[in-house]
Amino acid sequence: MSEAVWRVLAERGFGGLTLRAVAAEMDASTGLLTHYFPSKKALVSHALDIAEERTAARARRAAAPGLAALRAALLDVLPLTPDATAMNRVWVGSWDGSLGDPELFTRETARYEGWRARLRPHVEAAVDRGELPPETDIDDTVATAAAFAHGLVLQALFDPAAFPPSRQTALLDRFLRGLAA
Amino acid sequence: MSEAVWRVLAERGFGGLTLRAVAAEMDASTGLLTHYFPSKKALVSHALDIAEERTAARARRAAAPGLAALRAALLDVLPLTPDATAMNRVWVGSWDGSLGDPELFTRETARYEGWRARLRPHVEAAVDRGELPPETDIDDTVATAAAFAHGLVLQALFDPAAFPPSRQTALLDRFLRGLAA
Repeated sequence: MSEAVWRVLAERGFGGLTLRAVAAEMDASTGLLTHYFPSKKALVSHALDIAEERTAARARRAAAPGLAALRAALLDVLPLTPDATAMNRVWVGSWDGSLGDPELFTRETARYEGWRARLRPHVEAAVDRGELPPETDIDDTVATAAAFAHGLVLQALFDPAAFPPSRQTALLDRFLRGLAA
Repeated sequence: MSEAVWRVLAERGFGGLTLRAVAAEMDASTGLLTHYFPSKKALVSHALDIAEERTAARARRAAAPGLAALRAALLDVLPLTPDATAMNRVWVGSWDGSLGDPELFTRETARYEGWRARLRPHVEAAVDRGELPPETDIDDTVATAAAFAHGLVLQALFDPAAFPPSRQTALLDRFLRGLAA
């Protein structure tokens, strides 16, 4: 069932995520699905659970501590492969619903906080190792790196021809050099 | 009618944009609205028209050419006021539908291109004026600035307490200093 939900999401987004669409994808009856998902919100919550599991379980780049680890963590987010593109498509698509529902909003706020908390040690290590200037503001640098990465995700999703993987990577490297300057 | 569509969008997003919700907001019948919007897509297209009109018509900051103008143009995008927050909430909410529909996708691709094209002269002027180094890659700098701004929009939308207007502005100023370094 999770696989069917994911396929519907990746193709049609949250706007196209209906019991009927998932049932069709599974060759099951809508009635069966109503048993699992008594409401649209239950289905959306399950979809977010799947997205979180898949995000947590994805292969990650290994890297030395510091800027190299920050670079690897941001590369892990960018839509450089079809799978990463599908994942981003789902997360970007989730924002409409998250902005309209207090519970989902809180969940997305926490998700952003969690992401910044995972990037933070890399920036701290980069400062400790002298890769970033000692006066670097850690929280601001983390927020700026997260902003840059998500904004690049959006431009790449909507214009893959102008933002192929090679250019996304080059833009990230240029951004990181700017942080170090 | 446009006012009612906008209120529904700003409050519930595209997921909550239905003929019934707009009709209720107008104290009109759903039947009347069906006359104007024969399909959900017609309603969504109208909503995007309204968002574009409002975006084009909003008050903009005046600034000297170069980095100051780039700063002003990016400040115009950030959710620093309730109106700008509502506007961003609508645009972010539109992405789920735009990623799922070829026509809306093309429209969003063009909108991004148009935004970068409007930022470009500011970066060019900043190089001409010696505010950015002569070796600056114009297109990459524009894409990076757009990425930073939209990624900051997202973090501020989902965590207004952590990203009040003062911090958004400080982060932007720090980012611009980084470009110049």
